[in-house]
Amino acid sequence: MERLGLLVLLGLACSSIRPVEGGKILVMPMDGSHWLSMKILVEELSRKGHEVVVLVPEATINIQLGNYTTQTFKTPYSKADLDAIMDSLTEMVMKFSESVNVVEHFKLHSQFTYLKVKGCESLLYDKPLMKSLKEGGFDVVLTDPFLPCGPIVADAFSLPVVYFLRGLTCMIDLEAAQCPLPPSYVPRSFSGNTDVMTFPQRVKNVVIAGLETYLCHMFYGSFGELASRYLQRDITYKQLLGNGAIWLLRYDYVHEYPKPLMPNIVTVGGINCAKGKPLPADLEEFVNGSGDHGFVVFTLGSMVSELPEAKAREFFEAFRQIPQRVLWRYTGVVPKDAPKNVKLMKWLPQNDLLAHPKAKAFITHGGTHGLYEGLCNGVPMVMIPLFGDQGDNVQRMVVRGVAESLNIFDITSEKLLGALRKVINDKSYKEKMMKLSAIHKDRPVEPLDLAVFWTEFVMRHKGAQHLRPAAHDLNWVQYHSLDVIGFLFLVLVTFICVMLKTCQFCFRRCCRSSNKKKKE
Amino acid sequence: MERLGLLVLLGLACSSIRPVEGGKILVMPMDGSHWLSMKILVEELSRKGHEVVVLVPEATINIQLGNYTTQTFKTPYSKADLDAIMDSLTEMVMKFSESVNVVEHFKLHSQFTYLKVKGCESLLYDKPLMKSLKEGGFDVVLTDPFLPCGPIVADAFSLPVVYFLRGLTCMIDLEAAQCPLPPSYVPRSFSGNTDVMTFPQRVKNVVIAGLETYLCHMFYGSFGELASRYLQRDITYKQLLGNGAIWLLRYDYVHEYPKPLMPNIVTVGGINCAKGKPLPADLEEFVNGSGDHGFVVFTLGSMVSELPEAKAREFFEAFRQIPQRVLWRYTGVVPKDAPKNVKLMKWLPQNDLLAHPKAKAFITHGGTHGLYEGLCNGVPMVMIPLFGDQGDNVQRMVVRGVAESLNIFDITSEKLLGALRKVINDKSYKEKMMKLSAIHKDRPVEPLDLAVFWTEFVMRHKGAQHLRPAAHDLNWVQYHSLDVIGFLFLVLVTFICVMLKTCQFCFRRCCRSSNKKKKE
Repeated sequence: MERLGLLVLLGLACSSIRPVEGGKILVMPMDGSHWLSMKILVEELSRKGHEVVVLVPEATINIQLGNYTTQTFKTPYSKADLDAIMDSLTEMVMKFSESVNVVEHFKLHSQFTYLKVKGCESLLYDKPLMKSLKEGGFDVVLTDPFLPCGPIVADAFSLPVVYFLRGLTCMIDLEAAQCPLPPSYVPRSFSGNTDVMTFPQRVKNVVIAGLETYLCHMFYGSFGELASRYLQRDITYKQLLGNGAIWLLRYDYVHEYPKPLMPNIVTVGGINCAKGKPLPADLEEFVNGSGDHGFVVFTLGSMVSELPEAKAREFFEAFRQIPQRVLWRYTGVVPKDAPKNVKLMKWLPQNDLLAHPKAKAFITHGGTHGLYEGLCNGVPMVMIPLFGDQGDNVQRMVVRGVAESLNIFDITSEKLLGALRKVINDKSYKEKMMKLSAIHKDRPVEPLDLAVFWTEFVMRHKGAQHLRPAAHDLNWVQYHSLDVIGFLFLVLVTFICVMLKTCQFCFRRCCRSSNKKKKE
Repeated sequence: MERLGLLVLLGLACSSIRPVEGGKILVMPMDGSHWLSMKILVEELSRKGHEVVVLVPEATINIQLGNYTTQTFKTPYSKADLDAIMDSLTEMVMKFSESVNVVEHFKLHSQFTYLKVKGCESLLYDKPLMKSLKEGGFDVVLTDPFLPCGPIVADAFSLPVVYFLRGLTCMIDLEAAQCPLPPSYVPRSFSGNTDVMTFPQRVKNVVIAGLETYLCHMFYGSFGELASRYLQRDITYKQLLGNGAIWLLRYDYVHEYPKPLMPNIVTVGGINCAKGKPLPADLEEFVNGSGDHGFVVFTLGSMVSELPEAKAREFFEAFRQIPQRVLWRYTGVVPKDAPKNVKLMKWLPQNDLLAHPKAKAFITHGGTHGLYEGLCNGVPMVMIPLFGDQGDNVQRMVVRGVAESLNIFDITSEKLLGALRKVINDKSYKEKMMKLSAIHKDRPVEPLDLAVFWTEFVMRHKGAQHLRPAAHDLNWVQYHSLDVIGFLFLVLVTFICVMLKTCQFCFRRCCRSSNKKKKE
């Protein structure tokens, strides 16, 4: 027995501890493209022997069965409602210029979020389901905080929570994690700024940063309201988010600009970067037939596989004029004289194609999944941002000289042709991309392993309290030491007043005594 | 040939890249205890097949030959000069209370640094040596920026530089790396504050933060002067430090408080935490003879192995009264009636002893090496800080409930006995220490591997430019957006003035016309 005790002590003292197997993980994902990379982590956690339960809304865009348990909850909206919003979004993007987009985009984004929050509410107030989940003996909640359900459930069940995300509107994620974000070199979303700004750009950045405070209040108001109502205490969404034990951010500095991060933020950008698998025989034959010219991969993400006929024609016309072959994920109307170098597919093995040595360019909307696959495989890009963070993603790649950017609103075959020829024929794009790719993949731990490690860490230690900054317990005035500065200012003023009064007093005494003397 | 090209492309595209072998590393270390952990990294880099050249001052405290090449440079001081300062420091600590210490400590620290900077100067102006080093074909400079020679050499040779350190006076390291350090929850050195402060503590912290600006200017003035003179351009030490490609900080959050760090800062706290090796037969016999009571390890670091006779007597008296055996690194005067449970040694295998399951307590001065060995092996501590960062280190361990702190100035056998009994008999110390130890050792990559990885990364990519924040190119006013705020304020004031004037104008016009009407 004593020997066993010694061994345990020795074991604890001498080696790293990795005993968590068969833990229980409650996953509250976000639908759509967000799910694509979270699924990779969820499946890996399941493969590692954990019992993973994924909460799936009844009306879902793409969350399907996998090697994990799913638990469906009712939603007050149908899949058709979601699809309608996504269609409006795509339609709006094609029709209007960028400046109109920002306002329209915000409106549709709010509509989408409103539905999703209603879905959350329906989950939270499903008493039998919540009871069974509470009694499920979970060790951790893994969630995409794009929706408030995960953070609220974690708080209600007193479970530690791990966030998995690309970033939230208004940078509320970084603010909630207590990251300082100086607007002088941290560009705000949708600002079009890089980390190096001119004076007018810095003015724009500061103004946007200021406006964000109000926008966020508006945008996340319903999240806070639901959280306060359900948890029965006043809480804002930012405060609730502050509970995060670990933030798994899909960031990498070959893409994002360097800025201060807190110790409980772990960057796992490129988590979806997998080793390319061999292509199916027909695809291999098609791409190999491209000879030295190689081929172009073209997708607009998981949500958009159609284009208005006129727009699509511009693409077909451009492709007709290049010597490369093209693989295009497209389900829209096909013109009769579609060029023969174009292969249209309902779905294509994007990463495997990009990993093929003959891949010369990647036409993409700039979603982070495709972007990191492009980066990972070192393929220069022609980027056509549609909505969300895509504009910012694209700008970051263009700045690094590995991509050209086009606007879907006014795209023409000439513009597309120009951009394609540039990224394919100007060697600097490929060279810079290969350098960026080499840096991206040169990491001490693969992002997926890192994400698994930190999720398991939180399970092993019931949180990551030692990484939680004390800033969470300060209010705005205290955080910025405004009360201290005010106090010190008061002390200084008092000191100066006392000194002046003393001098005045002494001076008067001196004058009086010298006057007396004179009189005498 | 084409096939080879394809393979290279595929190789670059599909897998992480780790080709650096046989690189050349120029090491400019800091003498004394700093060298102890840097040596671990230097030896590992050498073992990995790199050619490592360590620049060693002629008069050195403890830099010796190893499995690396050394290159000695002349110094205008002797080892006796260094020893004399270290002796004065120890003597001062034993004699005076803490408040006197701060001033005296700063004076002696400045004297020591002055000598060391003179040593740097002598290296930099040794033209033949510098010429041969410049032509040495080094890939990277690895240095402890406690001294300015490394950063200056790296700048002069246009080589990327990796810093390896625990932290610098005035937090100039973090400031140079562009880390925001809000004084509301980031305690300043020597403040005695934790990350949770009362209002008076926050006032103290803000005042110290303010004073540091001036102290730093004074303390690092000579560094900047030497750099400016040698590099023939105006540069402060903070600006020069800003060149760091990667900062390897000997930090871990079981010890340090969480605060924002920049992406090019890598924490490698506990790099010296090695697996315990079996003890030599005589030591094993001695510690095993302690039975269930176990034993106590006592060292005051690599620099202090003696104590004034009266002080030593207090220790002997305390040890006489405990059932544990004691292993003490001590070379001072031994009283005739020294207790038999104490074994005095010139040097002791500290980590191996702490890793022994019968180790019950560790009496230490709170240097980071010992501290991390204590943490790593889960041994509660009685801490007696002497100088430097030791006071802050000790406070962090005491706050976490894994150590008791004593002052060497007024230590008595009763106080020591009380502290020892507390950490040995009160189980909470051991329990908390084991938890902290488990968290400390639960990491995705071992700190040594991480340090090697990032040094090699810098060699592979000739720096880490993608991790360099744009903040480096902003001045203080720009960084804090003061110019932008001023501009926006001006715009606002102008707008208000124009509005008021317009209103006034309209009002007058209205009045005038109504008066006219009245008159009519």
